[in-house]
This record gives sequence, structure tokens and C-alpha cells, in this order.
Amino acid sequence: MQELKWTDAEKKVARKVFDAALDAELAEILAEFKSRAAKATEPEEMWSVEEYLNARRKHIDTKYDYRYSQLILLFGNLLREGRISEADLRGLSPEKIDRIRRFAFM
Amino acid sequence: MQELKWTDAEKKVARKVFDAALDAELAEILAEFKSRAAKATEPEEMWSVEEYLNARRKHIDTKYDYRYSQLILLFGNLLREGRISEADLRGLSPEKIDRIRRFAFM
Repeated sequence: MQELKWTDAEKKVARKVFDAALDAELAEILAEFKSRAAKATEPEEMWSVEEYLNARRKHIDTKYDYRYSQLILLFGNLLREGRISEADLRGLSPEKIDRIRRFAFM
Repeated sequence: MQELKWTDAEKKVARKVFDAALDAELAEILAEFKSRAAKATEPEEMWSVEEYLNARRKHIDTKYDYRYSQLILLFGNLLREGRISEADLRGLSPEKIDRIRRFAFM
């Protein structure tokens, strides 16, 4: 796939979409973590929270890769997951939006 | 250090002391974990709970080693930490108690 150029304006849009999606996903994990911790009454449950956090951290670190070469893929995933909408992508070039849509629904 | 022989009766005492100390230490970690999780409002605090649990799990796994060759050392540590008392060791041979005491207060 040919490398796309990102204008400064597009970089601003991308950063905003990226940060908002990451914050929202972290907030979900935080809520789930607090709920599991509050329910835990046995050491086993505590160690399973540790495993949960470890897996989520690795998942987040891999998924949220802010290299311009990876953003199309990430935004495609986020669109498929319903974490962002096409409206959030307003300001990106039609070619980028088209590629994101194709990743999302392929 | 010469290998000590453990009678069946001593093994029972050792198992009881070991399990009670481990349960108590796990209960402390569980309480601390729940308290930290309840206070967490930011993802950073959640990841620091993960680090806390990871370190505690490694500590517990290393410390609570139920090999007879290691029990004297463990019980010495537990005695020094105030997690067990000499009364808990009743039923072990005077030589074992003496070695545990020496480990504890050396």
C-alpha cells in the first residue's frame, strides 16, 4: 500500500480521534477493573484481575500505535468496533477515509 | 547445614503454620489491592496496581517454598516478621526450633 501523506490539519484530526478512542477504552478497562476488584473476596480472584490487567495492557499497547503508517489500520478497527464513527474522521482526505472504510468492512 | 528429618507429626505442625501464615499474608495483599483499586480514578493508578500485584505474587511464590529443606529458613523469616510466634512451632523438635530461632534473630 502506497504511503499516504498527512497534512498538519489531518494530523490534528488523527490525534484527536486517537486520544479520544484510547481514553474511552482505558475508561472501560478501569471500570471493569474496579468492578472485579470490588467483587474479589479470594486471592484467586485477585490474581485473575492481575492477568486481566496484564492482557489488557498488552492489547492497548499493540492496538494504539500512533505511527502514520498504522493509523489507517487502527481507525479501520475502531470504526468496525463502533468506537468511532465516520463523522469523527471529517477533515481527513477522501482517499484516507475510503481506505479506513475498506479496512473496517472488508 | 545437616539435613533434618521431619516426623509425620512435625509435618502436620509445619503444614498448619505454613498455610496459616500464607493465608494471612494473602489476606493482607487482598485488602491492600481492594483499597488501591477502590481509590483508583486514572488508568495510571490501575497499571500501578498491576505492578503491585505482580511484585507481590513473585514475592509470595519465592517466600512460601514448602520444601522441608527450606522450611527452617521460612519459619525463621516469619518469626522475625512477627507473622508467627514460637508457640505456633510447638510440636517441632528442640533442634528445629533452635535453628528457626537462630535464623530469625541472627
